Amino acid sequence: MAFNITATIASFGGKLLKLTHKATSTNCEMALNLYLPPEAAKQGSKVPVLFYLSGLTCTGDNCAEKGFFQHGASQRGIAVVYPDTSPRGLKIEGEDDAYDFGSGAGFYVNATKEPWTKGYNMYTYITEELPNALFSSFDQLDSSRVGITGHSMGGHGALTLFLKNPGKYKSVSAFAPISNPINCPWGQKAFKGYFGEDQQEKWKEHDATELVKQWKGPLNVLIDVGTGDNFYKQGQLLPENFIKAAKEAGNDKNINLRMQPDYDHSYYFISTFADDHVAHAAKFLLA
Amino acid sequence: MAFNITATIASFGGKLLKLTHKATSTNCEMALNLYLPPEAAKQGSKVPVLFYLSGLTCTGDNCAEKGFFQHGASQRGIAVVYPDTSPRGLKIEGEDDAYDFGSGAGFYVNATKEPWTKGYNMYTYITEELPNALFSSFDQLDSSRVGITGHSMGGHGALTLFLKNPGKYKSVSAFAPISNPINCPWGQKAFKGYFGEDQQEKWKEHDATELVKQWKGPLNVLIDVGTGDNFYKQGQLLPENFIKAAKEAGNDKNINLRMQPDYDHSYYFISTFADDHVAHAAKFLLA
Repeated sequence: MAFNITATIASFGGKLLKLTHKATSTNCEMALNLYLPPEAAKQGSKVPVLFYLSGLTCTGDNCAEKGFFQHGASQRGIAVVYPDTSPRGLKIEGEDDAYDFGSGAGFYVNATKEPWTKGYNMYTYITEELPNALFSSFDQLDSSRVGITGHSMGGHGALTLFLKNPGKYKSVSAFAPISNPINCPWGQKAFKGYFGEDQQEKWKEHDATELVKQWKGPLNVLIDVGTGDNFYKQGQLLPENFIKAAKEAGNDKNINLRMQPDYDHSYYFISTFADDHVAHAAKFLLA
Repeated sequence: MAFNITATIASFGGKLLKLTHKATSTNCEMALNLYLPPEAAKQGSKVPVLFYLSGLTCTGDNCAEKGFFQHGASQRGIAVVYPDTSPRGLKIEGEDDAYDFGSGAGFYVNATKEPWTKGYNMYTYITEELPNALFSSFDQLDSSRVGITGHSMGGHGALTLFLKNPGKYKSVSAFAPISNPINCPWGQKAFKGYFGEDQQEKWKEHDATELVKQWKGPLNVLIDVGTGDNFYKQGQLLPENFIKAAKEAGNDKNINLRMQPDYDHSYYFISTFADDHVAHAAKFLLA
């Protein structure tokens, strides 16, 4: 077992495990939550796994407490992984100075710029190290059926990790994703910091709107964005750019962008539509 | 309008209003949350109201964010009120010294002991001042259909307010209620502080196990308690005492105490069974 189980909490008929493990890619101990649905307790059963990537400032706890993915995941027999959003405590100068860069803001990339190379490798952590550790430690998780979703920065993570790894994830969806980071303040700040200002090609490798232009194959995506979301209004999310690029590539037919009237950027929004995103994932994970 | 609306948040198709108002009974400004289901937005509609009373340390925010009541309340067309658990900022010496007395720990009583008489009148606030203010400010709330539920100290509040006010509440349920406060450390500390050590008759007036002995009429109660709840194990809740007293009074037939395997005292427990408690309330509020 690569993990310490620090708590086991009953939730919606299943178990929420609070886990920690020493991660190589991020160079520190990482905390996360793993929800095992009731189905996972049955002898010999294998359940599919949905990764939920959180947004800026969050840990793996926010959505486990307030997102209500467990409600739908319990009913459908899907495990949910709630990872942290960055390394913690690396003692890099400035890592705790801003809410939108450094701690809590790993952006699901591997930094190429010093000093962030020291552990800001959330891309490798989420796509390789964490799933490998989970699948080797928890027999009841089915490594052949993995989906991904996320919120805001984590929506960016979900879209880009799906688009950069054909076949790795069987489902993808997002809540209020940062859809075109190279053209919004949050993304520009992060990519400048983690890659460098002059690394425009590297920036594009982690931009869903750029990636979708090259995508071949099926693209079934559910995206919810609230019309009352101040970050949407401020141009941080730019979902229309993603849709436009997919359309130009002839691959927008199965992208379902729902503009939800009055909803904001909070977990009140996520919890309202969590069941829909679990149902979307289930279409592919339980097919 | 007796209230300031400090935020309006879309949630499960309805609106969560963050409210503040100047309360006389508690001698301070009180904050609360009011969830209006989609039904309440229809012209001329009147929706029933479920009061959710929180436990020690909580404000009206905890359950609004983590309790999942909006899920069921939205579907059934029930408004939910999430009040605070005590006055705040009265500058009474010692009011912030302990998690289980003073701020965040009003215990839904009217204090009779100085200096707490200055505003620790949560009984009057919850049973009279707050509902009167709500019903005079929000036409869409039906004052003739009110239910009550709560958690821990708030479960004590739900049971005692129901039993002390025949006919006022059409439904009652509780999560992990402090069911016999005169016989547990939390209750003894609170009643000693708010009433005085020698006021045993006053203590009994706010003890569900004592009150149920005198109760005449129907008593349909849903109570959930987790077997993994450390406060249950420590003897703070004593639901068995309540059941025993009701049985001796010949009035336990419709008390449904469910011991939920492994569940703890947290909002993971509450959210799992919130739908059931809304359904229980709906049986009476929508009858």
